[in-house]
Amino acid sequence: MKSALKELEEKGKLAKAASKKLAFLSTEIKNKALASIAEALIDNRDKILAANKVDYDEARASGMNEAMLDRLMLSPSRLESMAQDVKTVAALPDPVGEMFDMRTLPNGLQIGKKRVPLGVIGAIYESRPNVTIDISCLCLKSGNAVILRGGKESMNSNTALAMMARDACEKAGVPQGAIQLIESPERALVNHMLRMRGVIDLVIPRGGAGLIQLVSENAAVPVLTGGIGVCHTYVDKSADLDKAVAIVYNAKVQRPTVCNALDCLLVHSQVASAYLPAIAREWTEAGVEMHCDGRALAVLKTVSPTKLVQATDEDWGKEFLSLTAAVKLVDSLDEALEHIEKYGSGHSEAIVTEDYSAAMRFVNEVDAACVYANASTRFTDGGQFGLGAEIGISTQKFHARGPMSLKEITSYKWVIMGSGQVRD
Amino acid sequence: MKSALKELEEKGKLAKAASKKLAFLSTEIKNKALASIAEALIDNRDKILAANKVDYDEARASGMNEAMLDRLMLSPSRLESMAQDVKTVAALPDPVGEMFDMRTLPNGLQIGKKRVPLGVIGAIYESRPNVTIDISCLCLKSGNAVILRGGKESMNSNTALAMMARDACEKAGVPQGAIQLIESPERALVNHMLRMRGVIDLVIPRGGAGLIQLVSENAAVPVLTGGIGVCHTYVDKSADLDKAVAIVYNAKVQRPTVCNALDCLLVHSQVASAYLPAIAREWTEAGVEMHCDGRALAVLKTVSPTKLVQATDEDWGKEFLSLTAAVKLVDSLDEALEHIEKYGSGHSEAIVTEDYSAAMRFVNEVDAACVYANASTRFTDGGQFGLGAEIGISTQKFHARGPMSLKEITSYKWVIMGSGQVRD
Repeated sequence: MKSALKELEEKGKLAKAASKKLAFLSTEIKNKALASIAEALIDNRDKILAANKVDYDEARASGMNEAMLDRLMLSPSRLESMAQDVKTVAALPDPVGEMFDMRTLPNGLQIGKKRVPLGVIGAIYESRPNVTIDISCLCLKSGNAVILRGGKESMNSNTALAMMARDACEKAGVPQGAIQLIESPERALVNHMLRMRGVIDLVIPRGGAGLIQLVSENAAVPVLTGGIGVCHTYVDKSADLDKAVAIVYNAKVQRPTVCNALDCLLVHSQVASAYLPAIAREWTEAGVEMHCDGRALAVLKTVSPTKLVQATDEDWGKEFLSLTAAVKLVDSLDEALEHIEKYGSGHSEAIVTEDYSAAMRFVNEVDAACVYANASTRFTDGGQFGLGAEIGISTQKFHARGPMSLKEITSYKWVIMGSGQVRD
Repeated sequence: MKSALKELEEKGKLAKAASKKLAFLSTEIKNKALASIAEALIDNRDKILAANKVDYDEARASGMNEAMLDRLMLSPSRLESMAQDVKTVAALPDPVGEMFDMRTLPNGLQIGKKRVPLGVIGAIYESRPNVTIDISCLCLKSGNAVILRGGKESMNSNTALAMMARDACEKAGVPQGAIQLIESPERALVNHMLRMRGVIDLVIPRGGAGLIQLVSENAAVPVLTGGIGVCHTYVDKSADLDKAVAIVYNAKVQRPTVCNALDCLLVHSQVASAYLPAIAREWTEAGVEMHCDGRALAVLKTVSPTKLVQATDEDWGKEFLSLTAAVKLVDSLDEALEHIEKYGSGHSEAIVTEDYSAAMRFVNEVDAACVYANASTRFTDGGQFGLGAEIGISTQKFHARGPMSLKEITSYKWVIMGSGQVRD
C-alpha cells in the first residue's frame, strides 16, 4: 500500500512537470501523436484484444452480468470505431491559445483572455476500456496531462491501451508523463487522488451513481460530475400526438442503456386516452415495460398491451438504463413541472406541445442541463450538439453544464498589453 | 451550538426556496430593491454608524491593530461610497436570461445557452462590514440567494446592514430569504456551511490567507477563492527605464494594502546600476522599505537611500500588504520566469520591456490570472477591467480566473427548441 501511494505521488509529480510543457506543445505535435494513437489501435489489435480477452474471461468466470460484460468487451470493429474517434479529436480545433473578449480600454490597455489548459486531470472510470483512449486523447489535445484510474476488471485492457498511447505519444515528441495509468488495484488510491490538491487540477469520474457519489463527497480537488440522467418527457394536452409518439418512442428505445434516455413519461390527463394506447402499442412492440400509476393503468387496461406493471414509489426518480419506463398522468403543466423538480436529476427534460406559452414556461422554468421543446432527449450529447468529441455530460452548475468537450477542460488567463499605463 | 446549527439549516432551506423565485425575478424589481438599499444606507446612517461604533470601540479595547481597525470603521463618506457602489450594480446589465451561442443545427434544432443563477451563495468574510452590502447586491442582481457569515468583530455593523438590506428588499417585492446573515459567533458554523451540499451552491471566502486556506481545505461545496497576491514586476534589460520607474512606483505605492500591489521587484543585472537608484529615490520618498538581495544591496549602497534591508529567504513569495518590497537582481528573462513560477501566487505579474520577444514570452509563459506587459499590476480589478462591480479576484483556474463580476456567479442551461426531431 505504501509503495502504491508513493508511486501515485511520483506519477503526480511527473504529470505536473509534463503539464507545464504540454501547455506549450504545438498543435502539430499533438495532432501527430493523435494520428499515431489511431494507427497504433489498429496495428496493435491482436495484442490489445488478447489483453482484453484475459479481462473478459476473468470477469465472466466471476459472474459479471451481461450488460457489464458488453461494456468491457473490445472487438476489431470497436477498435476501429475508437481509432475513428481519435481522428475526430485530431480534427477538432485546438482550444489552447484562443484569444477572446479582446478589447482596448479607454486608457489604451489592450486586454483580453487567452485559453490555457487546466493542468493535470485525474480520470476515474469503471469497466469500459475505451475511456482510457477517449479521455487520454481529449486531455492531450487540450494540453492537459492525465492520470488514469480504470476499473480493476479491465486492468489488462487499460494497461495495453495506455502503454500503446504512451508509446505513440513519445514517438511523436510529446513530453513524458502526459498519459499515465495507475496499475495498482488498491481502492485507497482513489481517495488519495481526490485529495491531491496542487497536483491534480480536476477529477472527472465516469461511471455509475456509486462512483459519482464517492467522488462528489470526498473530493478536495475540483470535480466535473454528471452522467446520471433521470429524464422526463411531458406530453402536454396541446401536443401534436404523432410527434409525441415519435419523440417518446425515440427517447426510450433508440438506445435505452444511456443517461439521456427517457425514464419517465408524463401525460396530460386530457390526452391520455388518445395518446397512451398509441405509444403503448409502439413501445410494447419494442419490448418496453411500462410501470404505470393507477390512472395510466386504467386507461391502458382497456387496450391491454402486454408489458404493464403497477408503478411503486421507487419508480419515480429512477434511472432505468433499460427498456423500462415509468408512466404517470398529470392534470396540468404545473403538476408536470413539480414532478420534474422533485424527481429529475437535472440532466435532460422535454415537453411535447403546440402551445407557445406552455413551451416557453417549460424551457424557462425547468432547472436542468438541457431542456427541450418538441425533440427527443437523446440529443444531449457533445457530438449531436456540434461540439465534436465529448468528455462527459455535467449535471453540476459550476464551471460547465451539459455536454462538455475540449473547452470545458481549459481555463483562461487575462493578458494585458500596455505602453506604460499606471493606475490613478 | 445545536440550536445555531439548526438555525443555519433553516436559513439554508429558506435560501434555497428563495433562490427558486429569485431566478425569475424581474430586472425591474431587482433594480428597485438595489435603489432602495442605496437610499437606506443614507437614511439609516445614524443607526448604522452607532452599531459600527460599538464594534469599533470593542475592537480597539481588545487591541486590534490600526490596519484592521481601519477596515472595520464606517463613516458618512464610506456609507456614501457604498451607496454609490450599489447604484453601480443597479446600472449593470442583468446577466440572468442572456441567451448565447445560439445556432440552428443541420436537423433544424435551434440550440443555445441561457444564463441562469447558481442558486445559493455562501459568503464568508472577515472584518470589513461593507462586504455585507457588496456581496448581497451582487447576489441579488444575479438572482442568487446569499447567506452571509461575517467576522464576529463586525457583527453589530453587519447585522444593522443586513437587516436594512433585507427590509429594503422586502419592500421592493424581493422574496423573503434572499439575504440572510448568520448571527451566531460559533466557529463550527463555518465548517458546517462548507459542507451544505445540495443547499449552498458556491462559497466565496473574502479575507486573509488563513480563511482562504480553511475554506479551500474543508469545502465540500464549490468555492471561488483568491485574493492572495504575491505580485512581481520584472524590469528587463531592454526596458524603457522611465516607464519602469513609473510602473513600479505605481504598483507599490498607489495602494500598498491590496492584493494587486507589487511585492517583489526583479531587475535585470545589466540595467541595475542605471535603474535601481532611480526607483529607490522615488520609493524612499514615499516611505517604501526595500528588502534587497546581496547584489541589489551592493548597487544601492553607493547611493544609500535610507530604507534598505538585507533580504532573507522569507521575503521571496511574501505578500507584504504594506510599503515594503523585496528586490532581486536576475541575469536573464529565464531567471525571472523561474523566480515567478517558484514564488508567485498566480495573481498578477508584469514585465517592463521594449523587447518584443521578451514581452511575448513573458505573457505566454507566466502562469497567472493576469499577466502584464508594460503596465502596473494595480489594474487587476473588475472595475478597471471594465466588468463593473467585482465579486473578487480568483486565483484558481476552475470556473473563473482573475477579476470576477456578475457573470462569474452564474451558470447556464442548454435550451433546445425542436419541431419533432428524433435521433437516428
